Amino acid sequence: MAKRTMATSLLRIPPPQGLLRPLAVPERLLLGPGPSNVPPRILAAGSRQLLGHMHPEVLQVMDEIKAGIQYAFQTQNRLTLAISGTGHCAMEAALLNLLEHGDTTMVAVNGIWGQRAADIARRLGANVHELLKPPGEYFTLWDIEEGLVQHKPLVLFITHGESSTGVLQPLEGLGELCHREKMLRRKMQPPSFYLDMGWLANYWGCDGEARRYHHTAPINSFFSLREGLAMLAELGLESSWERHRANCAQLCQGLCDLGLELFVKEEKARLPTITTVSVPEGYDWKEITAFLMDNHAIEIAGGLGPSVGKVLRIGLMGCNSTSSNVDRVLRALQDALRRCCRSRL
Amino acid sequence: MAKRTMATSLLRIPPPQGLLRPLAVPERLLLGPGPSNVPPRILAAGSRQLLGHMHPEVLQVMDEIKAGIQYAFQTQNRLTLAISGTGHCAMEAALLNLLEHGDTTMVAVNGIWGQRAADIARRLGANVHELLKPPGEYFTLWDIEEGLVQHKPLVLFITHGESSTGVLQPLEGLGELCHREKMLRRKMQPPSFYLDMGWLANYWGCDGEARRYHHTAPINSFFSLREGLAMLAELGLESSWERHRANCAQLCQGLCDLGLELFVKEEKARLPTITTVSVPEGYDWKEITAFLMDNHAIEIAGGLGPSVGKVLRIGLMGCNSTSSNVDRVLRALQDALRRCCRSRL
Repeated sequence: MAKRTMATSLLRIPPPQGLLRPLAVPERLLLGPGPSNVPPRILAAGSRQLLGHMHPEVLQVMDEIKAGIQYAFQTQNRLTLAISGTGHCAMEAALLNLLEHGDTTMVAVNGIWGQRAADIARRLGANVHELLKPPGEYFTLWDIEEGLVQHKPLVLFITHGESSTGVLQPLEGLGELCHREKMLRRKMQPPSFYLDMGWLANYWGCDGEARRYHHTAPINSFFSLREGLAMLAELGLESSWERHRANCAQLCQGLCDLGLELFVKEEKARLPTITTVSVPEGYDWKEITAFLMDNHAIEIAGGLGPSVGKVLRIGLMGCNSTSSNVDRVLRALQDALRRCCRSRL
Repeated sequence: MAKRTMATSLLRIPPPQGLLRPLAVPERLLLGPGPSNVPPRILAAGSRQLLGHMHPEVLQVMDEIKAGIQYAFQTQNRLTLAISGTGHCAMEAALLNLLEHGDTTMVAVNGIWGQRAADIARRLGANVHELLKPPGEYFTLWDIEEGLVQHKPLVLFITHGESSTGVLQPLEGLGELCHREKMLRRKMQPPSFYLDMGWLANYWGCDGEARRYHHTAPINSFFSLREGLAMLAELGLESSWERHRANCAQLCQGLCDLGLELFVKEEKARLPTITTVSVPEGYDWKEITAFLMDNHAIEIAGGLGPSVGKVLRIGLMGCNSTSSNVDRVLRALQDALRRCCRSRL
């Protein structure tokens, strides 16, 4: 039947050949900074049949997602919701709802996410002050306070988990340094309807009003997100923290045993989800990541933005944070250090 | 183990009870304006294990998606890509890449999508002229030309498939009336990094440059989209058009046989994917849609925006566009007309 159609077709552009072959997805262990491998239960939830975006069952799933996010972040903020887009989209949603043309903002830049936030804020017409630290370092309360006193920003942007460098920024005490949020007092509408927090808050039932149609939401992503949060609720937040900490500690020890140097010096400033090591002297980082991919089907990553060429990044997140994955990536790295080195002698 | 964790937990907010119950997804026939039911093959593709957003296999999937979109829209435009967001997000991406503060734009408004576009354009600081038609009508070339001469807009927005009213807007001849696109000549960066077409074009390999990291893309949505386009390529575009036309014609005939009145008068101006009927005299549209959902597990919708209270909307899209679904929704409607009517005597 397809043949008959093609034979008699008057179309200018024929069906592309690439699409007539089956989709091939090789098996890989994704130990980069993300995406990570996804548990089968979450993948299965995302492959359930769709429901309408205003059906009561979907609204209930959204309520469960809100409760799950509030649990994960230990917050009772009514304005808790998920954005219909990627993490980058959510970061942009936060900034564009807070900032107006001419507003002063201070962005703490110690890696790619601060750079990106400064870029977005400038696109929104904000008056941006950058507070700079070298990649691998974090900001002290004193650094922040000094900047706040000097620039008096309406909005402060700071990165909690700087995935480009492996730095965990401590947030304790920052709340007291900052003013309340700006969002409810803005003069102009934000420059996006899709990401307008007023509309989103209504659709997510955060404002106590009857829910209005805003956008046709990605229902299957909601199902997956709900299931991921359910797994976290079942495991318990503290058990999850402890598991990530323990496997990260095992990884750091193993990397040191291989003679590698951790990029973030202070132990308390290391992310428990992404570990960075300095690219070892005499090696090409691209050769190492390619070797792990080609010979071990494992992804680890090089740097990003200001950390390019400086680090290798190894992620242990969610179901990938296991002791056996730590063993596997350490064996693969040992192999790479031996073989990549030999190949250049 | 979960119990032990909870017993010794120091967390302020406990795991939400709703998340500790299994996800329940009832079976429904979604014949509203979307979402529609998704073929199992597409759901299965979306539940494949993830790969990295820069892996060669993913870049190949993206190339196949581009070729599939070019086939579906019969275009050879190099700037062909998918947006990491919902349809609404894509509409906003088009507008915010084209419009700058102070630019004049003309928006043809004959339903909710024109209204939304005008709203977005105003948020972007554009000088917006609305060309108005009542819901259910479309714009002639003459209407458009008159508006273009009067307002001299830099950008024209017009809705091809107005899903709120069921109107199919003819596009023939519009291209000649319009100037070339504005995008490459803008003075300021667009107010979004996430939706910046320059970055997106690079990530999608449309600009001939080496691909740079832009955002961490929704790989499983790419897999699903690729598979949907593969099914279209296998079936053939013309067969797909013909199937949608034939089933829509059967539906329209059946609706007339039930004594219902089609909302879009001219046959050629009716969308083959969404059919609108006027709410029959003496009936409450909410009662009819609720009756179909409760008694037949079928979703059809009321109006949206300017068509609220005026119409019922029945969608026959993709795998839902079948002769047996037409029979099923007609039987359900007949039942509703009989029973909803009786209940109010």
